[in-house]
Amino acid sequence: MGWELGEGMGHPTEGRAPAAQRLQDRCHRDRRLYSGGDMAPAGSTRAKKGILERLDSGEVVVGDGSFLFTLEKRGFVKAGLWTPEAVVEHPSAVRQLHTEFLRAGADVLQTFTFSATEDNMASKWEAVNAAACDLAQEVAGGGGALVAGGICQTSLYKYHKDETRIKNIFRLQLEVFARKNVDFLIAEYFEHVEEAVWAVEVLREVGAPVAVSLCIGPEGDMHDVTPGECAVKLARAGADIIGVNCRFGPWTSLQTMKLMKEGLRDASLQAHLMVQCLGFHTPDCGKGGFVDLPEYPFGLEPRVATRWDIQKYAREAYNLGIRYIGGCCGFEPYHIRAIAEELAPERGFLPPASEKHGSWGSGLNMHTKPWIRARARKEYWQNLRIASGRPYNPSMSRPDAWGVTKGAAELMQQKEATTEQQLRELFEKQKFKSAQ
Amino acid sequence: MGWELGEGMGHPTEGRAPAAQRLQDRCHRDRRLYSGGDMAPAGSTRAKKGILERLDSGEVVVGDGSFLFTLEKRGFVKAGLWTPEAVVEHPSAVRQLHTEFLRAGADVLQTFTFSATEDNMASKWEAVNAAACDLAQEVAGGGGALVAGGICQTSLYKYHKDETRIKNIFRLQLEVFARKNVDFLIAEYFEHVEEAVWAVEVLREVGAPVAVSLCIGPEGDMHDVTPGECAVKLARAGADIIGVNCRFGPWTSLQTMKLMKEGLRDASLQAHLMVQCLGFHTPDCGKGGFVDLPEYPFGLEPRVATRWDIQKYAREAYNLGIRYIGGCCGFEPYHIRAIAEELAPERGFLPPASEKHGSWGSGLNMHTKPWIRARARKEYWQNLRIASGRPYNPSMSRPDAWGVTKGAAELMQQKEATTEQQLRELFEKQKFKSAQ
Amino acid sequence: MGWELGEGMGHPTEGRAPAAQRLQDRCHRDRRLYSGGDMAPAGSTRAKKGILERLDSGEVVVGDGSFLFTLEKRGFVKAGLWTPEAVVEHPSAVRQLHTEFLRAGADVLQTFTFSATEDNMASKWEAVNAAACDLAQEVAGGGGALVAGGICQTSLYKYHKDETRIKNIFRLQLEVFARKNVDFLIAEYFEHVEEAVWAVEVLREVGAPVAVSLCIGPEGDMHDVTPGECAVKLARAGADIIGVNCRFGPWTSLQTMKLMKEGLRDASLQAHLMVQCLGFHTPDCGKGGFVDLPEYPFGLEPRVATRWDIQKYAREAYNLGIRYIGGCCGFEPYHIRAIAEELAPERGFLPPASEKHGSWGSGLNMHTKPWIRARARKEYWQNLRIASGRPYNPSMSRPDAWGVTKGAAELMQQKEATTEQQLRELFEKQKFKSAQ
Amino acid sequence: MGWELGEGMGHPTEGRAPAAQRLQDRCHRDRRLYSGGDMAPAGSTRAKKGILERLDSGEVVVGDGSFLFTLEKRGFVKAGLWTPEAVVEHPSAVRQLHTEFLRAGADVLQTFTFSATEDNMASKWEAVNAAACDLAQEVAGGGGALVAGGICQTSLYKYHKDETRIKNIFRLQLEVFARKNVDFLIAEYFEHVEEAVWAVEVLREVGAPVAVSLCIGPEGDMHDVTPGECAVKLARAGADIIGVNCRFGPWTSLQTMKLMKEGLRDASLQAHLMVQCLGFHTPDCGKGGFVDLPEYPFGLEPRVATRWDIQKYAREAYNLGIRYIGGCCGFEPYHIRAIAEELAPERGFLPPASEKHGSWGSGLNMHTKPWIRARARKEYWQNLRIASGRPYNPSMSRPDAWGVTKGAAELMQQKEATTEQQLRELFEKQKFKSAQ
Repeated sequence: MGWELGEGMGHPTEGRAPAAQRLQDRCHRDRRLYSGGDMAPAGSTRAKKGILERLDSGEVVVGDGSFLFTLEKRGFVKAGLWTPEAVVEHPSAVRQLHTEFLRAGADVLQTFTFSATEDNMASKWEAVNAAACDLAQEVAGGGGALVAGGICQTSLYKYHKDETRIKNIFRLQLEVFARKNVDFLIAEYFEHVEEAVWAVEVLREVGAPVAVSLCIGPEGDMHDVTPGECAVKLARAGADIIGVNCRFGPWTSLQTMKLMKEGLRDASLQAHLMVQCLGFHTPDCGKGGFVDLPEYPFGLEPRVATRWDIQKYAREAYNLGIRYIGGCCGFEPYHIRAIAEELAPERGFLPPASEKHGSWGSGLNMHTKPWIRARARKEYWQNLRIASGRPYNPSMSRPDAWGVTKGAAELMQQKEATTEQQLRELFEKQKFKSAQ
Repeated sequence: MGWELGEGMGHPTEGRAPAAQRLQDRCHRDRRLYSGGDMAPAGSTRAKKGILERLDSGEVVVGDGSFLFTLEKRGFVKAGLWTPEAVVEHPSAVRQLHTEFLRAGADVLQTFTFSATEDNMASKWEAVNAAACDLAQEVAGGGGALVAGGICQTSLYKYHKDETRIKNIFRLQLEVFARKNVDFLIAEYFEHVEEAVWAVEVLREVGAPVAVSLCIGPEGDMHDVTPGECAVKLARAGADIIGVNCRFGPWTSLQTMKLMKEGLRDASLQAHLMVQCLGFHTPDCGKGGFVDLPEYPFGLEPRVATRWDIQKYAREAYNLGIRYIGGCCGFEPYHIRAIAEELAPERGFLPPASEKHGSWGSGLNMHTKPWIRARARKEYWQNLRIASGRPYNPSMSRPDAWGVTKGAAELMQQKEATTEQQLRELFEKQKFKSAQ
Repeated sequence: MGWELGEGMGHPTEGRAPAAQRLQDRCHRDRRLYSGGDMAPAGSTRAKKGILERLDSGEVVVGDGSFLFTLEKRGFVKAGLWTPEAVVEHPSAVRQLHTEFLRAGADVLQTFTFSATEDNMASKWEAVNAAACDLAQEVAGGGGALVAGGICQTSLYKYHKDETRIKNIFRLQLEVFARKNVDFLIAEYFEHVEEAVWAVEVLREVGAPVAVSLCIGPEGDMHDVTPGECAVKLARAGADIIGVNCRFGPWTSLQTMKLMKEGLRDASLQAHLMVQCLGFHTPDCGKGGFVDLPEYPFGLEPRVATRWDIQKYAREAYNLGIRYIGGCCGFEPYHIRAIAEELAPERGFLPPASEKHGSWGSGLNMHTKPWIRARARKEYWQNLRIASGRPYNPSMSRPDAWGVTKGAAELMQQKEATTEQQLRELFEKQKFKSAQ
Repeated sequence: MGWELGEGMGHPTEGRAPAAQRLQDRCHRDRRLYSGGDMAPAGSTRAKKGILERLDSGEVVVGDGSFLFTLEKRGFVKAGLWTPEAVVEHPSAVRQLHTEFLRAGADVLQTFTFSATEDNMASKWEAVNAAACDLAQEVAGGGGALVAGGICQTSLYKYHKDETRIKNIFRLQLEVFARKNVDFLIAEYFEHVEEAVWAVEVLREVGAPVAVSLCIGPEGDMHDVTPGECAVKLARAGADIIGVNCRFGPWTSLQTMKLMKEGLRDASLQAHLMVQCLGFHTPDCGKGGFVDLPEYPFGLEPRVATRWDIQKYAREAYNLGIRYIGGCCGFEPYHIRAIAEELAPERGFLPPASEKHGSWGSGLNMHTKPWIRARARKEYWQNLRIASGRPYNPSMSRPDAWGVTKGAAELMQQKEATTEQQLRELFEKQKFKSAQ
């Protein structure tokens, strides 16, 4: 179970608050560097430090958060498809979200190109990839934030493992990133390490630093390769930064990272570590991660992490030696700010958005009601066991899976929408399963 | 307990899906009328129907959602203060949110002027009120959406009940709204009906339609005036539209509305009804509402309503005879879309943002995994009891209150931040209380 | 909601432990008076103080616990029928349970005659009533415990309200009690106050003190007579002791008692108060009480009260002015001991069974593991929020009721078992209801 | 996590009810063989089939349930000490409980001699062991039930591993069992397999069949010997029957059994399998089992298994190939009856106590309220997710452990009760831990 991380993982932020408080004063100065939104762009002449330069020197790198889930709630992305055409259809919505993550303290702006491959988006894909780069670079402006071009697993790999064809898909996207001169590359959301290795091999062709993250949990990839073995394969393929993203909540993702780290150590390999977990708690999910939970994707609300959960996650990740720390689905801007606030002592500054956030609830100290003023402190929020307000609901779910394994006909994605008849059969099957 | 609404409140949307489905086709046409975001503005020559015209003819009016909580998470509002200076500091963030609510189907855009009085914001208040009007009107553009100028309770009423002074505060804000020529006025978030009556009296001076909503629950206002009596007083003061907003979740708010409706009926009075509840479930809160829950304001995540909860809420509200239906804190754009989708059969169209949303999860019908395709239907989401993913947490909390009553010295708000010494005393007191 | 009892109900036992500790020493002496089980009978010459003598002088009277539910789990009572033929079929099992309640500190042994009427048990009823008296009196022996003859509501009242016929049923049972010379009489488990008044009128004919308790909650009896009005009617009918038993858990039952007490006070009437609640928590049940909860009767385990819950209940009851405090369904011997231990300072002695129970867990202070030794104290058990170990289950249920009201044909009990066809119809109906 | 048992573990009793129903008719005949309580003893001339004879022929053997926890609640055993002096102090209470388990369908009556060694009980130990044998044999009477003499781990093993001294302790108890001529022997509740091997070696000296069960979970014994390895060691030591008892709930215990079975299979060893799990659900406990849960031992109520849980457990155990199936702490007579009812089709008869129990709630089919009649069926109880009625409590707890490991000074049990000063230190330590 992802929840228990063993000794010493209790409240790792102990003793940080005073330092964090002092940092508030430095906020204005730092805003010059990390400006966003309606603020004037920071001095554009400063040479930007590269991702590896930062990680090599031990700096913390804060990633950004969720585009698909966040923009779905804002009305610009369709669940199920999860494709990024918003970059061309509603650029101001995408621009706004980049701006919010930047204000929240993100050092990296990922292009919103998830799943933007020919395979999924037909002729639109190239325009989308280009527009996504433009938007991220526009918001990064002359500031210190890095723009990362992102690719993810193909839907082809499940049906055939045609290395050449799959690599070509990666290469097409890569071409755009190269042309747009992004700062580095991220291959993410791979559930088969073999495909991730192919992605790394392609991305290395261009010369920019390469980060890679799998969407696996402690049980390993879909072919039962353990997290430790996965990390070793990715390091050997030449990835500079290795980790996990999506599919699992904070505690489970950190468990996986622990196993990856141990795998690398045992193989005497070196790589920077990154983690970009879900903003949802998933103590009950199986190997397939949150997509198998019955609540996915329209009933995940009660699982959303609080800012305090994320501060704890950021501290745990840091203590594990991870230096690239961000989020995936479910991470809203305030979650990224929570990472930046927790690691402000290490980074030396607070993010711009902290001008609107008292550390550990300190902004409540002027409230009319004394019991709300009494919430203006770390001990309160750290120890509170928050209620769901849903007494008729359980606290855990059993993941769906139906005993279906790799390669089953039922797992083949159809080009066309599932027919009414097929859906009726599925509904019957589900009814039968849930009665068990 | 707000949760149980008695018979007939089970699943009121029964039988709506097919109709809703057919409406999807009309979406494009309707977008002409309700355009927002990056779309071209709809034909500006059409004369806009007023709020009372709509309600008098039995039309559903969809309100908008939360600015304070939503923009707090995006990094532009500070919790505790809850003031709207973002309209001048980060106008693009406010514009974006108005756009999202409009796309989601809102018929009304409220100016983001909550608490924007001289009392709370010093010299900034006038600029803020003016800018807020400009932003809402800019987004409403030439489309059919109405702009409502909003005022709320003062912080003075708790200390003295100086009618003249309080009315003057209202009048100052009103002057800006009159100058900007908003479509109608809303006085909201009043916990004392007497102060709300004063607000209505002032707002009526200008001639525009007046809506008023209290932030009370079924137990009535802070002076123990029942919801029924409150509604009667407000109707007699001349309010055109009467209801509740904030402080309580959907089911509790509808209970209060039921009592208001009965009060008006028993007094043979007529008024339009409105409800703009929290986007959080609060079955466990006391008379003070969600601010007294220990999770307020930074641990409310597990209480966030799903889109399906809100569809049910919209249907219940409609069945109760309420025609102005919107949301307050916790209502994100997708919650407003859920109202618009549930009431699409009555309204005759789907909102623009439904182009990115399959009704009742139908967008999942192409997913690779058969058990996820099996979630593409109403019965699934309606009956699912979603889990919190938090097995170490309870499902309900006991509200704080400390037995403090009206007028206690502890309830006096200080201009200056609470001192360290005062906070220490509060923390000790809280420790003692929670040990009980 | 039964749960919240307002101020001052927190941890009422505060400060009692030291006194209780000292009482442990007096345990041996007291055992002489309250012997049971395998111990030699206490001196039989002592004249027993009557129930009213005790209550008039302000003494606490501890009732006994559950026979039906306890013996069902032990294999001697059939759920559904809930009749007491075990007194003739398995007398040693009944004798043992009486002994256990006596050892636990009960001052009253109720004859196990629940529902033992001609109507329910045909020709067996008289033998059962007589045997039940013999068993209770045998166990009470020459000690100080009182034997109370118990009757309960008829199954006839629902179909016709034939006062004469119903009173005759009561009179038949009463005759046996009079012959056996029980110490006093209890009419309990009445859901219609009118029938309870008839019972009181009959019981008064014999001259022994009369206690009466309804199985109602704060919403009143099945004809909507409020608890306050019920209490007044019963006092006017001549009942010496008035209260509630069964159907609702501790906190809800105490709420009802508060209303009864206020009713009597407002009518300037005097009566002793008694409470014998369920040993199950029922915050979620409706007017019908726990029988309507979906878990009744075979899934109530997670609702069972702990000994600490019962200590709190005993203290609250005492603070409300109730002096006859016992239990109903779900109360096992250790629950009765918890009442006796909590009120040991007031009673002046601990019950015999406390020789096997360290006050507030003090018996754990020799455990091998230090963290278990650390549980040997009041603060630990008082503040612990115990987990259900059932993360896939909710914490509350919605009561069944199906909108059926008084007099509906569906509510008519048949002599013969429900037919297969009737059951099939019920199952279909249930399926439909729970899908809502 | 003990909870998920993978495929095929859903509702294994599917399709059994009709057969079970038919068996009800055979109940009276069988009572002759398995009489208990107030019934006349069964014909004493029949030669009793031995435990191995039964298991060798594939018969199901139903064990009995909990004496310590059950008699603690009845007032005859002291928690913390957990010693069986009730056999001499309150023999009728022990006799009654044996009778109840026999009526419930137990094929084995274990002597109530848990922890009854010189070491724990000083001079009383011999009298207690002898009396315990007499009571079990008296209740077994001339019927078919077997009497098993039981020993458990010593408290010495933790301090020194003096094989000779520990074996002598076992030998002393064994002498009594040999003299009383019990039917077979059980060594149970061992957390170190080495000590269990010693026990088996001693028990084999007498010639009777030897069963042995460890109180370990899937993580293995306290020296990290896996369940599979433990089983192999015990089989090699000559145990006839091998399994687990206590410490873990049904699902976790069955997981451990699966591992034991696989261990034996991999080593090509044969042994009969037994399981006697807790009657409490413990999905959240760590390696130490339920004693480390904060609720142990006075707050376990919400974890108590229902009869339906136990029917499922019995079926799973049977499907795993286990033929000796009983219970440990928390198993009340009705839980044993649930095993006997579930396996009635295999055994060919229902237990005597089923005369008071309708299979799958069928006894409810005459209830007045239609919604309660609708509960008279298997589907209802199998699918119901029962609520805790405790909305302010969590569903899982974190086990205590304090990071203390084997051999730490804090783990040494003292002869004398912990001093006040030592307790104060423990309480402080606990306070500190739980604040983390």
